[in-house]
Amino acid sequence: MRIGIVAPSSRFDRTTADRVQAVAAACHPRLELVFHPQCFLSWRHFAGTDEERGQALVDYANDPGLDAIWFARGGYGACRIAEDAIGRLGPNARDKAYLGYSDSGYLLAGLQRAGCAEIAHGPMPQDVTRDGGEAAVRRALAWLVERSPSALEPGLDPERPNAAFNLTVLSQLLGTSLEPDLSGHVLIVEEVSEQLYRIDRSLFHLTGNRLSAGLAGLRLGRCRDVPPNDPDFGADEEEIARFWCARAGINWLGRADIGHDADNKVVPFGRR
Amino acid sequence: MRIGIVAPSSRFDRTTADRVQAVAAACHPRLELVFHPQCFLSWRHFAGTDEERGQALVDYANDPGLDAIWFARGGYGACRIAEDAIGRLGPNARDKAYLGYSDSGYLLAGLQRAGCAEIAHGPMPQDVTRDGGEAAVRRALAWLVERSPSALEPGLDPERPNAAFNLTVLSQLLGTSLEPDLSGHVLIVEEVSEQLYRIDRSLFHLTGNRLSAGLAGLRLGRCRDVPPNDPDFGADEEEIARFWCARAGINWLGRADIGHDADNKVVPFGRR
Repeated sequence: MRIGIVAPSSRFDRTTADRVQAVAAACHPRLELVFHPQCFLSWRHFAGTDEERGQALVDYANDPGLDAIWFARGGYGACRIAEDAIGRLGPNARDKAYLGYSDSGYLLAGLQRAGCAEIAHGPMPQDVTRDGGEAAVRRALAWLVERSPSALEPGLDPERPNAAFNLTVLSQLLGTSLEPDLSGHVLIVEEVSEQLYRIDRSLFHLTGNRLSAGLAGLRLGRCRDVPPNDPDFGADEEEIARFWCARAGINWLGRADIGHDADNKVVPFGRR
Repeated sequence: MRIGIVAPSSRFDRTTADRVQAVAAACHPRLELVFHPQCFLSWRHFAGTDEERGQALVDYANDPGLDAIWFARGGYGACRIAEDAIGRLGPNARDKAYLGYSDSGYLLAGLQRAGCAEIAHGPMPQDVTRDGGEAAVRRALAWLVERSPSALEPGLDPERPNAAFNLTVLSQLLGTSLEPDLSGHVLIVEEVSEQLYRIDRSLFHLTGNRLSAGLAGLRLGRCRDVPPNDPDFGADEEEIARFWCARAGINWLGRADIGHDADNKVVPFGRR
């Protein structure tokens, strides 16, 4: 099995790639992880220019010799390449699995909209740098290589399609050509480094959009590294999510085991 | 002339109100500024509960004895009350002028959509606390009382309708019931306290939405207090705005004299 790795967002580095290769070699000796040379480019904020990042995704996604595409890391930049790159994907791209989260959500969304069937929200190579991050990488590989049930978020609805996104990323693609079709889905959102008033504001935006009208329900992953609110917001993220679900008539389905951390579980899109 | 002041967002205080009264008394002796008692309430992050803030807006907007509504300050919270309050406005509300910016943009947008004709983006009472803020208050009053041309943003297009918003606020209301109709408009956006990658991301969102397809063009106000980007973003806010305009086929019409500062000029919505 061969998994191709591209970096559609921020800069990535070889040391991190080597650590991921070591984890993969230890648990899946016959697996080949292929880091696209683009992963190690640097242009401004990004892992190469928009053209370089987009072309790397197109090359690997269309390569019949690769079984899956793994996004190297988040940060920022996937929204700049997603529409154009996805528009250039051929039939070989439709049969692959795709895994990532955070800023990669722009691609997960656009790939879902483009009809790719095997998309999942879950750990990325960069997670190896977190405390306990090797476990996150092993979990990602367990899904990519074996579709191991142990890698999955434990509360996934077996009867309905699921999907997961970073809340800000999902909010910031609503109405664009990348907006996914989540009708009938249980949607899970997670957040990082956003103040509570911003979480409240993003949930106003999300629950006020037509995408939310078709949801089977909403679950909330972890909100990590929330900066202080001045003045105190007076409600935590769960109270905020319950408030907006109640206002919009969306089923509140509780918490979920995903987030910007090493415990981030895999959420395959669609029906199990 | 009587102007009613309500606080749809964050907490406001009496000391600031007194300073604004003093400025108003000095330049418009016959003007009556009426601060709604709600301005001085406090609930969590906000100037009173959602119900209190919404009811104050409804009361004053529907009051035939008031000529204009001035939003006391920004912060956060107008999105939580806008749809419900605007839905309860009667004919007296349609004849009034409304002035504010920043978080008040949720109300400017919803009021435009509801057919109110005299809406403007410009200074608020809270601006009196800025360096040089008394000039901002005088400018706001010059528009509210006399529609003084000297208060206006100097580059407004005389032939086409204009509108102005905080970029994040506009991004975060796209697709909701508050989304304004900006077809044929010159849109001006400004920003504060957002990193350049976030400005880039918001402009992806805005220029990728159907609202942008109908714009006559885009102008960029000031982006204030931009926190550092790590790594360096490699482009300033004007290069970013030009990039997204070019990508989306929107006419780039240059900079504009608005922003989160005392120099913020007035942008009346619609045609002059």
